[in-house]
Amino acid sequence: MNPIAIGIHGGCGTLARDLQSTQDWAETEAALEASLRAAWTILKAGGSALDAVEAAVVVMEDSPHFNAGHGAALTENAEHELDASIMDGATLGAGAICAVRRIRNPIKAARAVMENSDCVLIVGDPADAFARRQGLAMVENGYFTTARRQQALASLKARKERGTLAAASEAERHGTVGAVALDAKGNLAAATSTGGFNNKPAGRVGDSPIIGAGTYARNGACAVSCTGQGEIFIRHAVAHDLWARMHYAAETLHRASDALIHDVMKPYKIGAGLVAVDAKGRIAAPYNTLGMARGWIGPDGVLHLGTHEEMKSLVLAS
Amino acid sequence: MNPIAIGIHGGCGTLARDLQSTQDWAETEAALEASLRAAWTILKAGGSALDAVEAAVVVMEDSPHFNAGHGAALTENAEHELDASIMDGATLGAGAICAVRRIRNPIKAARAVMENSDCVLIVGDPADAFARRQGLAMVENGYFTTARRQQALASLKARKERGTLAAASEAERHGTVGAVALDAKGNLAAATSTGGFNNKPAGRVGDSPIIGAGTYARNGACAVSCTGQGEIFIRHAVAHDLWARMHYAAETLHRASDALIHDVMKPYKIGAGLVAVDAKGRIAAPYNTLGMARGWIGPDGVLHLGTHEEMKSLVLAS
Repeated sequence: MNPIAIGIHGGCGTLARDLQSTQDWAETEAALEASLRAAWTILKAGGSALDAVEAAVVVMEDSPHFNAGHGAALTENAEHELDASIMDGATLGAGAICAVRRIRNPIKAARAVMENSDCVLIVGDPADAFARRQGLAMVENGYFTTARRQQALASLKARKERGTLAAASEAERHGTVGAVALDAKGNLAAATSTGGFNNKPAGRVGDSPIIGAGTYARNGACAVSCTGQGEIFIRHAVAHDLWARMHYAAETLHRASDALIHDVMKPYKIGAGLVAVDAKGRIAAPYNTLGMARGWIGPDGVLHLGTHEEMKSLVLAS
Repeated sequence: MNPIAIGIHGGCGTLARDLQSTQDWAETEAALEASLRAAWTILKAGGSALDAVEAAVVVMEDSPHFNAGHGAALTENAEHELDASIMDGATLGAGAICAVRRIRNPIKAARAVMENSDCVLIVGDPADAFARRQGLAMVENGYFTTARRQQALASLKARKERGTLAAASEAERHGTVGAVALDAKGNLAAATSTGGFNNKPAGRVGDSPIIGAGTYARNGACAVSCTGQGEIFIRHAVAHDLWARMHYAAETLHRASDALIHDVMKPYKIGAGLVAVDAKGRIAAPYNTLGMARGWIGPDGVLHLGTHEEMKSLVLAS
């Protein structure tokens, strides 16, 4: 059988251990595992990388423990504006939506844009309307809200008023989710979904829905999904740059990924991470913060996941 | 004196000669010349590439003969939704807005996002509100409307109903404007502004406001602004790819520009063009359609402009 692989991330940041309960961390890891297994089941059955990354992201969107879908960050107006994108490495087909408010699973809307419209990117209310016409599940904006994000927003606003907003807020700023996959036909795909960051200005859009910045996939080379301060990822077109380093400069996936996260991002002093897979199913998942929720199953069928430095491993039944 | 240069485009397409009167074509050329002269005056006085590209784009936004600002295309709802972006090659600072309705000069709002916010991209109504707070000139949405676009929209809708919509509509689909510049300090900058295309779906956003797709600038290499079917430019991250080809593969500006417009775009059978400048002030302006409104002034101080194959040249007083 040709190699297959799935890699996911649930955002990077300081991920301070005491910011969540032991149960919260356990649930986060369980969701990572469920996300990986959902994708793996598809890939093992000969399904497409596109179906796999969508399924992986949906699990994280539906979990309250990630900043995407249910559990997403709140804007300065205490609302949710969600962004997502998906790309098919076989065709370079791509779809994205941003600043949507009513779509239960934004990644499904991104895929519908790719497959059922002439657009790559639809923004705002028309994107919600498009998703509704596509028959996707719609929710009230409040569906996305969790007590944790409300508390974080209140805390951020209070600290901002007191002028004591510091780097400690980093933990509340990230949490984008993403997935990359290689299927048995050799096709690569990538998907990314986010709520942005807590207290973000209304209308602000980061790299997650931007093809070439937060998401990129191209057969024969790589698929990649990014997390971190989106403004810097856009300026460096990080996702496309990973492909360009491999394609034009013959860098390996690991070398290119490390260069982007550890060298290119260094002067900006921002949190940054990505997960990427190459055409052989090798996975890279570098980050420059204290932690990144992440996991992967490579061609060897071993599942790895973790939120901090140490990882758990699990040999899946073949 | 160090080399300085300005290059502009006013969109590519079939530009059928009989689609506009002789006077319209003369006015289009006059606007191109005014755009080039506005930028050149800034560059000659030691001004910045950023100021030059903004000034060049503002002239085209204010002219009814281009699909940006006044004269912009109409959406399927007979409204205007405008997109723009700008990038500073010296810092990689960037700003963009999309789906805005009330900002007289979208390129000024993009620059304000870059300089006066923590964002790179702001979308929709919040972008209009941001521009208003920045003190930029605001207009009613109808300010952007011209009789030509209204007629084109009516014609498109009629043909769509009759099912006779064909490639002939290409002429109405493009017209994005853009500018690239090299200043005496060696700094590069790029700017792009558009109304999208006539009868575009509400909420659809193309490559123009996407850093890395429609616009990119990085000192030491190139600045570039694209025009054409944005969906394909996003999928290939064309603007960043131009930089990547020069940086990683040591392609010249002309070779990289020609490869993108003539080779990469060929299988898609779409209209495509770009204008780009390198660190020595050399200008490339390839297009694969019958015409592209364009012009440039290189380090030799000779002004070139045209809308079709033949170009006019004018030696400027030094």
